[in-house]
Amino acid sequence: MKVLIVGLGLIGGAYAYRLKNKGYEVYAVDLNQESIEYAKEHNYIDDGGDDASLFIPKVDMVILSIYPQAILEFLKKNAKYFKKNQIITDVCGVKTSFVVEATKLSKPALYCSHHPMAGREKSGVKFSKECKFEGANFLITPTRETSYQTVEKLRALGTDLGFKRITAMDIYEHDKMIGFTSQLAHAIAVSLVNSDNNPDNTKNYIGDSYRDLTRIAMINDTLWSELFLENKDNLIKHIECFEKNLDELKIALMNNDKTALEALFKSSTEIRKEMEKK
Amino acid sequence: MKVLIVGLGLIGGAYAYRLKNKGYEVYAVDLNQESIEYAKEHNYIDDGGDDASLFIPKVDMVILSIYPQAILEFLKKNAKYFKKNQIITDVCGVKTSFVVEATKLSKPALYCSHHPMAGREKSGVKFSKECKFEGANFLITPTRETSYQTVEKLRALGTDLGFKRITAMDIYEHDKMIGFTSQLAHAIAVSLVNSDNNPDNTKNYIGDSYRDLTRIAMINDTLWSELFLENKDNLIKHIECFEKNLDELKIALMNNDKTALEALFKSSTEIRKEMEKK
Repeated sequence: MKVLIVGLGLIGGAYAYRLKNKGYEVYAVDLNQESIEYAKEHNYIDDGGDDASLFIPKVDMVILSIYPQAILEFLKKNAKYFKKNQIITDVCGVKTSFVVEATKLSKPALYCSHHPMAGREKSGVKFSKECKFEGANFLITPTRETSYQTVEKLRALGTDLGFKRITAMDIYEHDKMIGFTSQLAHAIAVSLVNSDNNPDNTKNYIGDSYRDLTRIAMINDTLWSELFLENKDNLIKHIECFEKNLDELKIALMNNDKTALEALFKSSTEIRKEMEKK
Repeated sequence: MKVLIVGLGLIGGAYAYRLKNKGYEVYAVDLNQESIEYAKEHNYIDDGGDDASLFIPKVDMVILSIYPQAILEFLKKNAKYFKKNQIITDVCGVKTSFVVEATKLSKPALYCSHHPMAGREKSGVKFSKECKFEGANFLITPTRETSYQTVEKLRALGTDLGFKRITAMDIYEHDKMIGFTSQLAHAIAVSLVNSDNNPDNTKNYIGDSYRDLTRIAMINDTLWSELFLENKDNLIKHIECFEKNLDELKIALMNNDKTALEALFKSSTEIRKEMEKK
């Protein structure tokens, strides 16, 4: 299997060294020459550079590991080098906003998007080994046009990368779900940290709760502002639903309503315990 | 050193076995005879029962590890057995609502409250060994009346229990701070889980972010509804400040304002990274 990874950041680098270890022939392109050098020196890739057109003809699969808003731009520039039956995919955390267009642009190659649900509060290829895939979800997001064979090839990629659970799901369903489990969680963590009036004092007294809850407030601002905006309709709905629930709790407090508070706590405990069973 | 632990739950039990291991003489009272039997069998305590008056005269320190609203009630019933120079303390997570009154009721004994910042999403003495104190904060909350000697005795207690950082702070400052780092975090986690419209689906796709953020949504509803209500003025202010920050993010989304989003992410990243340095 021969792959080209476009964008050697945290995730691109994690793909590179894992696939190389699995015996893949791995190429990479990145505008940052240092990242390419680092990956070559550490034997993450067979070869690389800054010109995708030199490597696209050599590979079975092109994996776009670049910022969401750069994907269509890349395809417009490079789709002319794509071959029939070549698979083009991306690791982007949102899907609806570009997958249909990307599929059109990539023809005669086969575009099928996927989403590795893993990351770290760091960026850059030098931290790639800290990015763990074991135990994580790998979501494949085919469209009506995607053949079963293509999905199976992405499933094999997920397996070779070491993901635990590999599932195919619709792009709209994906973005709705990820807006809740990932983006809303990040929006909350960011807002909680930003609402701290006295961080110098806070840091002396944080317990595990605050630490765990706010870890993801350390965030790649370029990447995540794109992810949020590409999925804004879903995310705004989730924020509003969350706000409604928090207001309910605040009103129970204002009314000294112990029974209402207990009911909210019982509900969250029951729902969350059910998740532990998975 | 001889102590009486009133209330053999998760925290009371954790105090009991650690102090016993340190060579303290440890007594406990609890209305639940099974908890006392369990603690005796596992050598957490020297003796125990359901009648505090039998044990109070024997000890140097009484540690109240009961629900907030039970503290004054306990003191009204049992302060008559207290001796001069005996120290009475409690492990409660909020302070302002009862400490002044508790100090009066406990005379001639010396009342000084403290707060072990540790816990687990479980309750009962059988889980006490899962409750870790290493690396955690131990806060002593003296009032104007508290002598330096009394604070030092509580500091020794915190050290013997294995806490990492032991600090004295004002009760009002304590409740304001804990309303932010602990109670607001719990209010958010509870509201996030309760805003889930499709938990059966969510549980298949949660990543580390959602899991970490919502762990504390599994919550002892009796204890935490009391803690919230005893500190409602602080907590409501913190909720409102958090909501303001989340609304700012929502409005940036609605306006497609990438620059504003990036500024919010940069701010949270900077504040949260600063905390990691501690």
